Amino acid sequence: MFFISDNGGPVPDAVLTALAAANTGHAMPYGKDALTAQAVAQIRTVFEAPDALVHFVATGTAANALALASLAHPWQAIFAHEGAHILRDECNAPEFFTGGAKIVGLPGAAGRIDPAAFKAALAQFASQDGTDTDAGPLSLTNVTECGTVYDPDQVSQLAGMARAHGIATHMDGARFANAVAALGCTPAELTWKSGVDALSFGGTKNGLLGVEAVIFFNPDAAQALARRRKRAGHLFSKSRYLAAQMLAYTQDDLWLSLARDANAAASRLEQVLADSPDATLIHPREANMVFARLPAHQHARLRAAGATYYLQAPDSAVSGPRDVMLGARLVCNWATTGTDIEGFANALKAPEFP
Amino acid sequence: MFFISDNGGPVPDAVLTALAAANTGHAMPYGKDALTAQAVAQIRTVFEAPDALVHFVATGTAANALALASLAHPWQAIFAHEGAHILRDECNAPEFFTGGAKIVGLPGAAGRIDPAAFKAALAQFASQDGTDTDAGPLSLTNVTECGTVYDPDQVSQLAGMARAHGIATHMDGARFANAVAALGCTPAELTWKSGVDALSFGGTKNGLLGVEAVIFFNPDAAQALARRRKRAGHLFSKSRYLAAQMLAYTQDDLWLSLARDANAAASRLEQVLADSPDATLIHPREANMVFARLPAHQHARLRAAGATYYLQAPDSAVSGPRDVMLGARLVCNWATTGTDIEGFANALKAPEFP
Amino acid sequence: MFFISDNGGPVPDAVLTALAAANTGHAMPYGKDALTAQAVAQIRTVFEAPDALVHFVATGTAANALALASLAHPWQAIFAHEGAHILRDECNAPEFFTGGAKIVGLPGAAGRIDPAAFKAALAQFASQDGTDTDAGPLSLTNVTECGTVYDPDQVSQLAGMARAHGIATHMDGARFANAVAALGCTPAELTWKSGVDALSFGGTKNGLLGVEAVIFFNPDAAQALARRRKRAGHLFSKSRYLAAQMLAYTQDDLWLSLARDANAAASRLEQVLADSPDATLIHPREANMVFARLPAHQHARLRAAGATYYLQAPDSAVSGPRDVMLGARLVCNWATTGTDIEGFANALKAPEFP
Amino acid sequence: MFFISDNGGPVPDAVLTALAAANTGHAMPYGKDALTAQAVAQIRTVFEAPDALVHFVATGTAANALALASLAHPWQAIFAHEGAHILRDECNAPEFFTGGAKIVGLPGAAGRIDPAAFKAALAQFASQDGTDTDAGPLSLTNVTECGTVYDPDQVSQLAGMARAHGIATHMDGARFANAVAALGCTPAELTWKSGVDALSFGGTKNGLLGVEAVIFFNPDAAQALARRRKRAGHLFSKSRYLAAQMLAYTQDDLWLSLARDANAAASRLEQVLADSPDATLIHPREANMVFARLPAHQHARLRAAGATYYLQAPDSAVSGPRDVMLGARLVCNWATTGTDIEGFANALKAPEFP
Repeated sequence: MFFISDNGGPVPDAVLTALAAANTGHAMPYGKDALTAQAVAQIRTVFEAPDALVHFVATGTAANALALASLAHPWQAIFAHEGAHILRDECNAPEFFTGGAKIVGLPGAAGRIDPAAFKAALAQFASQDGTDTDAGPLSLTNVTECGTVYDPDQVSQLAGMARAHGIATHMDGARFANAVAALGCTPAELTWKSGVDALSFGGTKNGLLGVEAVIFFNPDAAQALARRRKRAGHLFSKSRYLAAQMLAYTQDDLWLSLARDANAAASRLEQVLADSPDATLIHPREANMVFARLPAHQHARLRAAGATYYLQAPDSAVSGPRDVMLGARLVCNWATTGTDIEGFANALKAPEFP
Repeated sequence: MFFISDNGGPVPDAVLTALAAANTGHAMPYGKDALTAQAVAQIRTVFEAPDALVHFVATGTAANALALASLAHPWQAIFAHEGAHILRDECNAPEFFTGGAKIVGLPGAAGRIDPAAFKAALAQFASQDGTDTDAGPLSLTNVTECGTVYDPDQVSQLAGMARAHGIATHMDGARFANAVAALGCTPAELTWKSGVDALSFGGTKNGLLGVEAVIFFNPDAAQALARRRKRAGHLFSKSRYLAAQMLAYTQDDLWLSLARDANAAASRLEQVLADSPDATLIHPREANMVFARLPAHQHARLRAAGATYYLQAPDSAVSGPRDVMLGARLVCNWATTGTDIEGFANALKAPEFP
Repeated sequence: MFFISDNGGPVPDAVLTALAAANTGHAMPYGKDALTAQAVAQIRTVFEAPDALVHFVATGTAANALALASLAHPWQAIFAHEGAHILRDECNAPEFFTGGAKIVGLPGAAGRIDPAAFKAALAQFASQDGTDTDAGPLSLTNVTECGTVYDPDQVSQLAGMARAHGIATHMDGARFANAVAALGCTPAELTWKSGVDALSFGGTKNGLLGVEAVIFFNPDAAQALARRRKRAGHLFSKSRYLAAQMLAYTQDDLWLSLARDANAAASRLEQVLADSPDATLIHPREANMVFARLPAHQHARLRAAGATYYLQAPDSAVSGPRDVMLGARLVCNWATTGTDIEGFANALKAPEFP
Repeated sequence: MFFISDNGGPVPDAVLTALAAANTGHAMPYGKDALTAQAVAQIRTVFEAPDALVHFVATGTAANALALASLAHPWQAIFAHEGAHILRDECNAPEFFTGGAKIVGLPGAAGRIDPAAFKAALAQFASQDGTDTDAGPLSLTNVTECGTVYDPDQVSQLAGMARAHGIATHMDGARFANAVAALGCTPAELTWKSGVDALSFGGTKNGLLGVEAVIFFNPDAAQALARRRKRAGHLFSKSRYLAAQMLAYTQDDLWLSLARDANAAASRLEQVLADSPDATLIHPREANMVFARLPAHQHARLRAAGATYYLQAPDSAVSGPRDVMLGARLVCNWATTGTDIEGFANALKAPEFP
């Protein structure tokens, strides 16, 4: 009953098998090997983007920070949702990689940026003269931090506003697979066909040991990405082992299959909570994350039964007043089992004093 | 006959086996898992340093840049050999991570810093007032870029000079295993017992997929290492897969066994070259790298036979005047075979016009 | 009728006289001259802070950015009002000087930070673990961007909360003189006696050519300020000419006299607006700035009469619908004359169609 | 007898007079005033460069660091003489402003870069692949740190090599006036006509309170200079007071007249030393600096007589063995008098034991 994050799960056998298959003889270092070229080509195919620039890194923060640094100047603002991972959870990595750009947090319901708020922010920066902070890229998180999904129309609206102001759009796709699986669209439709210039294409939360791809659909927009990756220590000498994982991941839609499993598990969890008279959903469940409020005594019971997840309150609140409603984030991954869901449901339904 | 670098080799089966064994169920992310704690503990044991601060990253550049940034202020100088990897081969990563420190290159024969040159540099910076570039850490590369090894006495001499000036000593140990294997000393003797404060303990060049440990023997000297790692995108959510590799690596002296194999292969290659009337060794062969000069026609023959390695000249020189002597760097790794060495020897000895 | 900013005014004769008096013979460069020592001593006296660290720079942005960089680590958050100059008007200077810290904007009426909002922000950062963005210094702007003033009690409350969380308090005192003049307190009471650790003590907006002092009441808190100033290009070789200005400024309370004149002019301007049936004050007038709303046609008339000031709307709005209320910021300085105020009043009262 | 540096001298009356003349009424802040526009226009005229981009700052370090940051990317190398001010004397300011570029020190006699050394460095960086440190701008110091002067042919040779490799040339002209005065060429001949893209045009060492101009002859090469200046705290709100100084400085060749006086004083000082049997010149005296070796006892005598200057040895050496030769740097400025030179000569010639 591990619902802390999708990065706590194991990797599917296919990934380990691919690693073993890649482990033959010598290979050129620093991405000049054949497997890296194959993985790049396969990603281009998956995204219907034959000219895309594709660089592999090992963490989501690295992917985001490198993508943003390649798009933003140090004297610019980066626009993101006020709850975005790049703003709240990366220990100032974007500021570090960009050399001091400023992230402007924008409001918006359920994790999606409110277009009116983005419009107002653009207007504010447009009125600046040539010595003030300049408007830089827009960053959309999809799946959002609230577990909701931007569909291609919503992406197009925001990215279109950005383009009209001459600024680029980045997508933090740590859970991009879950978004595509939820929407049933193509990867191209959710990115460059909707105006996205650069994507952090996540693999780690969805079954890899630690591989993400930074994808620039317009390579000209990627200022010095290769050198930025090297000087940030994110160019792997043994790139073949990242490439092998990414190849397995994008082969035969494995990535979508894994994401569908995670989303399905979350859907079942959502149902369990919807069926509970004690629970209230906080955000619509659209992918692999469920946000719900439960009274403290229910959290205490769930924890006693072995369920682990983040509370939107100090842990001590669980043993506080029993009826206080406390928010929870519950994340499923490809390896979440029916048993996990049933265990959760049983703990929730069990009589409190048997 | 792959002698380009030791990062072109495969990983031993034990490492893949360890990955598979680690791939069970869920684990806490970001290094809060049990395997990471075990791997840290095991490294402390190997180094006889129960209080050491140990952080895992995936590349040597990340390890060096994070270690140096935790030791150096932006207004300081970092002292290194003028041929050091941190100065020449990391695309300004140390400057990036430190926020603009300056690396001062020092001369010294065969890759080892000349103590007199270090003394002169220290004197130069000591005479500065409180607004000039300040003397920051010393960084020693061991095995050096010339394939030679600092022994504990040599480390002690330089690190002692540093300490006398109130500055710390870092060791770039991308090939630390090869150095320890060559010297027959303990890891502790070559590091903290000789005055080293921080070590980049390499695993990638010696058989791992991509794992290095940043080790601070004096944790108090590591200014904000944990936050620096996170904001540089080098904190792995699935840390258990780095830890599993490092555990296998340091179990039963696997790391030393692999390094001994690499050193032994290099020793045989050295002998091949010593036996050739055409070859001249450039530096003493002390670990797993051989530097030698050969006439262009010999290089052409070796390449035709399939030997790959870096030339200290443009590749086109191989087809230039046949008797011009060209330097080569030949690197062995744990997977270099006797067949590789024999193939090299045969190409060298074969009659030119059969 | 120049009300654009207090940095548009001239300098009083006493300052130019002091420059001429300083212009005799040679002097040691880089602040090692006698006048610099005198100016530092005099500031210590004015602030009753005999141990304060005092460094002169030439711009307010330099003073703020250097002070904050000496207090904040790159992985920290800096807390400021959401309208603060450091957040909105310095082209990411604090991010640059700190190496990538993040400024967190806090709400609060009339430019003053709401203590409850600060408390919530501190709680949010306190719950982070050792790898997340850390709580860094609090920065208070006094006079605020809305022209209001924090009194010593209000400063104490916020600085006390900061201290209780182990973080320092900086005051952006670009208009510190106007605040002290308005409050009638001592400089010490508004700073270190209220818990302020570092002050940007402005001179430029209040009559100097371009001199500010960075003052650390607790010198131990100023991490490497001297080297930071040098490497930012803000150490003046001819420091005596900054010092001479600052000496004249702090001699015989000239600084307070200049500020009182500016405040008095703003008070008269406030009265003019209060007397106008068309005008509405936006914020209480507490120092040398007046914020008021007037209908577009009144702005048009004022501009035609030669009054210059910033509109909180595009300039084109002045010729838009005549009754739309548009906000204005009107800033007085020591050289604002009664004639300026009368001219403004007359333009406001003049019959529209004479 | 102040020979420590040319930044220790006073400013000519014309500069203070210009300040007083500029001190009338209000002016638009941040360089939007009429005087700033005039000063920019006048510099364009002086340099015969009607399209040049001209920005004023107050220190030489700011001018150099901003110019270099506008030319160099963080992943690049900057080529400079190994004794250059930007490398040795700016507390890592170029590294700070560029975000971590690396300055590569090149050898060369008497402070001038050896073209062969520059060629070798360019070759070294040209052989890098797309992930290594890239060749960035060349920076020439004129007058050099050894007091010598590059003439237009020498500048053309080095700048031409740079241009052939696609890199720009910056000139650190802290003593540019002294160079032009010494050569008798035009400012244009020594800069853009010789291939210089950007100049730090010094005023401070040659008679201003603290004003330098960053001049880009090709404005397109100046990446975001205006924003860089603002975010470094070097945009002056009261720009008119910098502009007034620069206008007076470039009016009627005042700048060249001041420099000629300084050079002439140094020429007389050179003659004094050439006439002394004890002295040896270290570098040719070509502008306003003299480098000479004298025995310790002569230094002691000079100091006793009140001469101040930098020794190329610890000060204590003066009272060491009397015949040890110690190097000295003696700098003249426009206000160095005949009395200063005679006093120096008399101290040198006076019988040791009268």
